[in-house]
Amino acid sequence: MVTIKVGDTVLTAAKLLVQNNIGLLVVTEAATDGRLVGVISERDIIRVVASGRGLEVPVKDVCTKSVVTVHGKSDVAEAAKAMNKHGIRHVVVVDDGGRAIGVVSMRDLVGERATLTAILQSNEKEIFHGAD
Amino acid sequence: MVTIKVGDTVLTAAKLLVQNNIGLLVVTEAATDGRLVGVISERDIIRVVASGRGLEVPVKDVCTKSVVTVHGKSDVAEAAKAMNKHGIRHVVVVDDGGRAIGVVSMRDLVGERATLTAILQSNEKEIFHGAD
Repeated sequence: MVTIKVGDTVLTAAKLLVQNNIGLLVVTEAATDGRLVGVISERDIIRVVASGRGLEVPVKDVCTKSVVTVHGKSDVAEAAKAMNKHGIRHVVVVDDGGRAIGVVSMRDLVGERATLTAILQSNEKEIFHGAD
Repeated sequence: MVTIKVGDTVLTAAKLLVQNNIGLLVVTEAATDGRLVGVISERDIIRVVASGRGLEVPVKDVCTKSVVTVHGKSDVAEAAKAMNKHGIRHVVVVDDGGRAIGVVSMRDLVGERATLTAILQSNEKEIFHGAD
């Protein structure tokens, strides 16, 4: 899990994503020991770029604040259910105090390589939805 | 499939991604009837942002030029094999003349919702690779 403070800029967020080769950062309050404020994704940053607002916009103005969380003691199925219910690719793992302690991504849940292997071993060609 | 010309800017690419709610554009030559030059992804744009190069950089300077393609007559398994072999999430579909006619994404191949449903119905908890 890589975190960024609410007052940091979108430019800093972009650098952290590239440096860590990840697609999502957890946004935390500067002053209160990591209380979860939101998440910021590659897509959030692309939206800022497209809007022409500039890269010095603070993360708190553009991050996603309605974060779906699971407790650290939850099992994997609970994380999968939460992704399924909300149609999302990441859930944030929190402790009893609501502090972020990790991120579980769809990529964690389903190795893409394993998924492709399953396709190759399957005859279910109707899973194909066509080119976009 | 959404295309962008080699001489267009990264800013234009960002706008096209947001407007079309997609993660990848096909980059084509302006003058030669859509000959495939490369692809540009959200990640490519985030790298430009992080580098501080500015958003007026032409797409041709930052796009991915070693594009993995499949022919339009290929079956789905061939697209899946190509993704698996190269560890990528998109392949470009081309015609006999090497012109791009579509994009197939991993999301096309495997509906994420269906994948999560499979996890929930499975007891294979060892597919979980842990939080990052």
